[in-house]
Amino acid sequence: MSKYWSKLAASLEPYVPGEQPKDRKYIKLNTNENPYPPSAKVTEAIKAAANDTLKLYPDPNGDELKKTLANYYGLKKEQVFVGNGSDEVLAFSFMAFFDPNNPILFPDITYSFYPVYAKVFKIDYELVPLNEDFTLPVDKFFKDNGGVIFPNPNAPTSSFVALEYIEKILNHNKEKVVIIDEAYIDFGGESAVSLIDKYPNLLVIQTLSKSRSLAGLRVGFALGHEDLIKGLDRIKNSINSYTLDRLALIGAVEAIKDDEYFQDTRERIIGTREKVLSELNKLGFKIIPSKTNFIFISHPSVKAEDIFIRLKEEAILVRYFKQPRIDNFLRVSIGNDEEMAVFIKAVSRIII
Amino acid sequence: MSKYWSKLAASLEPYVPGEQPKDRKYIKLNTNENPYPPSAKVTEAIKAAANDTLKLYPDPNGDELKKTLANYYGLKKEQVFVGNGSDEVLAFSFMAFFDPNNPILFPDITYSFYPVYAKVFKIDYELVPLNEDFTLPVDKFFKDNGGVIFPNPNAPTSSFVALEYIEKILNHNKEKVVIIDEAYIDFGGESAVSLIDKYPNLLVIQTLSKSRSLAGLRVGFALGHEDLIKGLDRIKNSINSYTLDRLALIGAVEAIKDDEYFQDTRERIIGTREKVLSELNKLGFKIIPSKTNFIFISHPSVKAEDIFIRLKEEAILVRYFKQPRIDNFLRVSIGNDEEMAVFIKAVSRIII
Repeated sequence: MSKYWSKLAASLEPYVPGEQPKDRKYIKLNTNENPYPPSAKVTEAIKAAANDTLKLYPDPNGDELKKTLANYYGLKKEQVFVGNGSDEVLAFSFMAFFDPNNPILFPDITYSFYPVYAKVFKIDYELVPLNEDFTLPVDKFFKDNGGVIFPNPNAPTSSFVALEYIEKILNHNKEKVVIIDEAYIDFGGESAVSLIDKYPNLLVIQTLSKSRSLAGLRVGFALGHEDLIKGLDRIKNSINSYTLDRLALIGAVEAIKDDEYFQDTRERIIGTREKVLSELNKLGFKIIPSKTNFIFISHPSVKAEDIFIRLKEEAILVRYFKQPRIDNFLRVSIGNDEEMAVFIKAVSRIII
Repeated sequence: MSKYWSKLAASLEPYVPGEQPKDRKYIKLNTNENPYPPSAKVTEAIKAAANDTLKLYPDPNGDELKKTLANYYGLKKEQVFVGNGSDEVLAFSFMAFFDPNNPILFPDITYSFYPVYAKVFKIDYELVPLNEDFTLPVDKFFKDNGGVIFPNPNAPTSSFVALEYIEKILNHNKEKVVIIDEAYIDFGGESAVSLIDKYPNLLVIQTLSKSRSLAGLRVGFALGHEDLIKGLDRIKNSINSYTLDRLALIGAVEAIKDDEYFQDTRERIIGTREKVLSELNKLGFKIIPSKTNFIFISHPSVKAEDIFIRLKEEAILVRYFKQPRIDNFLRVSIGNDEEMAVFIKAVSRIII
């Protein structure tokens, strides 16, 4: 605490990202990174762009990337916003669509950045408790509110809610913006992008960090009615004209264009996930059906926190959230087959 | 205007960056970019880093870059904050150190993003009119206020205020944060970094966009007492854990390390600037003494707006601000010698 901090700075409880310890080599299954490298076309394009043009500002609108995304998703360029990771896009969305004193709704167990955004932008919120099995209680979002946001699939629970229920929520909230945070949509869920032309109150947010193996490049995007995109642009252009550097813009374009590589790697991850879940099932783990590149698991006899600590001793990092309802669960990112074999072997020993 | 926008989004007047027209090839003297490319060591390092590690998140703290900057400026790592361009660092600073209902002070003619930040973060402000000759009226900052910010050298006027006056302002505002925005400090001014260990209320903000030829990479930083840096971290970690991608972090480290290249290019720009000012002087232009990589000029008989339009017709872009007190001035970035020869030739014809 410093006398120089604003009241706002003093009031905050910042988000804590998954640990990135540097003391030894770990199998990193704690930040939902992709085990496969980005497309070779991405790295080639970045190498070619690392030249004298870096002296010039990037395109503040990211038009080329917007066009590429619009084309890929069958939308207009004006229906696309691009930003510095989906975290920045989410932050700008809180500013652009939610007001103080009009509580928004999001699940009690969800991406832990939401309450942080709410605090920093002074947006009130009400938590909607997930059902006992961590599915989304859809009808709890039919009440009066200042906006709705949830991840689909949800993090860290990995559960997916079908589009017919998303539509019900959209229909019950026609005067408010409903944000579907689809960071993990490419691992088996069905995207709400197909609903954009039908619902002007729908904003879909995605990222290249997970399914395009580009966590290190910081590119996220939002898709929705062009009025929503204009709202996001107003916020961005009041904070930072150029949030994406030249290399990120160019790399992102190539990542979207190389659909073959994308399809191949995401299918590999889905395959590995299903194998891992089947083996954990045999070991007696409680398993939440997953449509993400991570799984959310609990064991009937060994505490999640103990497994977490033992795994770390064995140089395997997973994520443990010490918070109500999920403090006996572990979130485990899906690595490649070799990494997951080491993980399975380690937990087999730990739970004996 | 959309019914889905927040009250905040509806109220904004976003910043408009210098135009980047794509219809023809221009001599770009309108966004203060550096005419020289970045150090070859920067582009080589980025090429080498464009590899499989892009699948992994960057270091959220940017420790390597912080260490490099700390070492370069003779500070501790804890006295350094890094962000996505100095615009983002400025935005976070408004949030971290300024409160609503306690007006901050900045000059009436200054970086036009300041009132935009004030609006988006609901910070009241009072404009301090520059003197007639555009120098800073130092004693006008001795009054009660909620914080102080100004660029030194100032933009778009290019004037520099000596450190002894900065110290007076710091001494008169010991309970408030004084932010010196040194985006252009490397072109002849004297940095306030040397005062950091003496004044815990001083925050110095710089950028790699201008003097390190890296506008396309988006890297800015703040230097100050570690309590101020902690305040900035609280804001950043409530909005976006990773604002700098892996390539920007690596490129920035190399840019700071290659001091020889930096010294060479900035001296070349200073040399070109002095030659250009001397020639414009001969052409009868009114000239503000410049310590930046741009100049601020006015002609006694031809209107600035007319010169601006005529130059654009000749494929030379400069910046014109249609606002009180400076609507007969042009801001002209210093290009290389060839570009500036074309510029001088063009204005010579225009003012006849």
